[in-house]
Amino acid sequence: ETESQLSADAVELGTYAHYMQKEIFEQPGAIINTLDMLGGAQTVQAGWFGSEAEVIFQNIDRILILACGTSYHAGLTARYWLESLAKIPVSVEVASEYRYRDSVPDPKTLVIAISQSGETADTLAALKHAQAQGMPHTLAICNVPESAIVRACPLRFLTHAGPEIGVASTKAFTTQLAALYVLTLVLAKVKGTISAEHLTSLVQDLRHLPAAITAVLAVEPQVKAWAQRFADKHHALFLGRGVHYPIALEGALKLKEITYIHAEAYAAGELKHGPLALVDKDMPVISVAPNDALLEKLKSNLQEVKARGGELFVLADANTGFQESDGVHVITVPDHAGSLSPIVHTIPLQLLSYHTALAKGTDVDKPRNLAKSVTVE
Amino acid sequence: ETESQLSADAVELGTYAHYMQKEIFEQPGAIINTLDMLGGAQTVQAGWFGSEAEVIFQNIDRILILACGTSYHAGLTARYWLESLAKIPVSVEVASEYRYRDSVPDPKTLVIAISQSGETADTLAALKHAQAQGMPHTLAICNVPESAIVRACPLRFLTHAGPEIGVASTKAFTTQLAALYVLTLVLAKVKGTISAEHLTSLVQDLRHLPAAITAVLAVEPQVKAWAQRFADKHHALFLGRGVHYPIALEGALKLKEITYIHAEAYAAGELKHGPLALVDKDMPVISVAPNDALLEKLKSNLQEVKARGGELFVLADANTGFQESDGVHVITVPDHAGSLSPIVHTIPLQLLSYHTALAKGTDVDKPRNLAKSVTVE
Repeated sequence: ETESQLSADAVELGTYAHYMQKEIFEQPGAIINTLDMLGGAQTVQAGWFGSEAEVIFQNIDRILILACGTSYHAGLTARYWLESLAKIPVSVEVASEYRYRDSVPDPKTLVIAISQSGETADTLAALKHAQAQGMPHTLAICNVPESAIVRACPLRFLTHAGPEIGVASTKAFTTQLAALYVLTLVLAKVKGTISAEHLTSLVQDLRHLPAAITAVLAVEPQVKAWAQRFADKHHALFLGRGVHYPIALEGALKLKEITYIHAEAYAAGELKHGPLALVDKDMPVISVAPNDALLEKLKSNLQEVKARGGELFVLADANTGFQESDGVHVITVPDHAGSLSPIVHTIPLQLLSYHTALAKGTDVDKPRNLAKSVTVE
Repeated sequence: ETESQLSADAVELGTYAHYMQKEIFEQPGAIINTLDMLGGAQTVQAGWFGSEAEVIFQNIDRILILACGTSYHAGLTARYWLESLAKIPVSVEVASEYRYRDSVPDPKTLVIAISQSGETADTLAALKHAQAQGMPHTLAICNVPESAIVRACPLRFLTHAGPEIGVASTKAFTTQLAALYVLTLVLAKVKGTISAEHLTSLVQDLRHLPAAITAVLAVEPQVKAWAQRFADKHHALFLGRGVHYPIALEGALKLKEITYIHAEAYAAGELKHGPLALVDKDMPVISVAPNDALLEKLKSNLQEVKARGGELFVLADANTGFQESDGVHVITVPDHAGSLSPIVHTIPLQLLSYHTALAKGTDVDKPRNLAKSVTVE
């Protein structure tokens, strides 16, 4: 009876207007469930990825991540973490491209397939293609146990996001990121690229993540006010740098999916190489502005946008010194989440899409033309 | 006197209305000049890249390509060639991202910096960052001899596109691709991944490239007719698969740069993972449809677009069986250029941007907000 009660809760809207809204607000809990194995530990264990994980992780020297859509953005984010902390070179490939192109297989590669449903046709085919090319060390990061991708891999890590019903992925994405961060820490430990103190401190940050997400959800009223300004727009440009560039990609994809606004993301440094030509008063520019080493570079990119008449929407960390002014809107998130910042910055972008869709009146949970799981090619 | 005559020709418009148009039509000659060293040879020589090239090429086992904007798209295209023919794993990175992120250096990597001017600030800084990380094997692919990037590299290959004055790069891009194809053949020869017969046949294809470009330039009147339909659009989606995906990216960038139409490119297989939500009658979809192994997959992607009311513009190879119908416009290029097809398919996309800009009345050679060479960060 407890089980059926749980699954009824999982698919009922309760006080929420849409599944997407419910799933956005479920994220602190989804992350807690996904990180359950952490408990009060000071460190991480390879065994969380399977009984063979320790040996396999010792023996791989590269990583290939295969995914589609939102899961691809999770992979792109993880690349920054993995290369920085575990010092392992990473390639991230769109599954539908990888499965059909001639590539150069390397048996010492850990192949990671990321898929919420575990049934994404292109990702499964890409995974099997990698295995057929002689890469046996494969890891599934999925939300559905016993799904095809999980069954195809010797290693697996299940996100415990619970059922995701809204077509636009939210809690699946952030729990994938949490899983990939745990993987980064495990690999850094196995490869000896991190000190015990540094590891303990990052595990502590991870344990704080649900609280950080709860805190950032409180910006909803401010994001809702932004959404009113977006409802009549036809375009949007999302900018990020470094580990936040994939978050800009994900923010743009979310807006595309449920509001049909043509949103596109760029690495902020590429602006001058073309897309700046698009910027005028009809092209709002949304920027993720964490308090990191690239902040001053980003400010200079944003100055270029403002100089060309673009309207700026800045999601800034605390203490970044952004001021509201004519044509510059600023929402300051409560804190700075260090290397977990991309996860925290995802939340306001999800809320922005959600409230813009409400303001426009589009079908939030079932956007036109899209299916929840793409189980055909 | 001959020299000054030549340089005067190079910067005079002659019978052309704009530098961009002139430079598009100069491409057969620019490729002939860039491939001058081929002569009547049956094979390729490592020495074309510098006296140390043979030894360096024997000793590298990975490639890292650093570039911005259009040159980045050349690098993305080359990745497909290099992995397929020379069996060397390739990473392609946006220079402004690479220079600031923690990555994992590998001294056995050939680092390739691509820049028309040879002065692109981010590319130069990324190159120096790679060298400082212990990667000494660097190759410049540039159009300007004695530029900063050329001077910084032991290996170099100069494209001989002549001065490029239009801000939107055209002949610099296709000559970069020709140079990267020569590099692919040289590396395949040095690494022993290609038979002498196959190599001779690909060299022959390369020698035919200027004629193939001349032939495809003849589709200009048909492209001009398409351009009338684009002039009042605010959006466009460019689709490609495999080695033609970067060509779709370049086609979208060109349209952005000079017409200010919000054009975006996707790998066609990613459509279902989000961007299909954008497709309606106001979003024309341009697809590069070469006669290759992915043709049937692409047709199925295009069927999805048509089913959602999108207007399709297909640039098809001969014998691909695309028919004009209601909402489906087809331009058939004269032939199929084999592995050089991405270079040939670039030309109609350049013409489409040019004629759409004319129809809209934007400043073709000096688009708003952009500079020719981005020599500041």
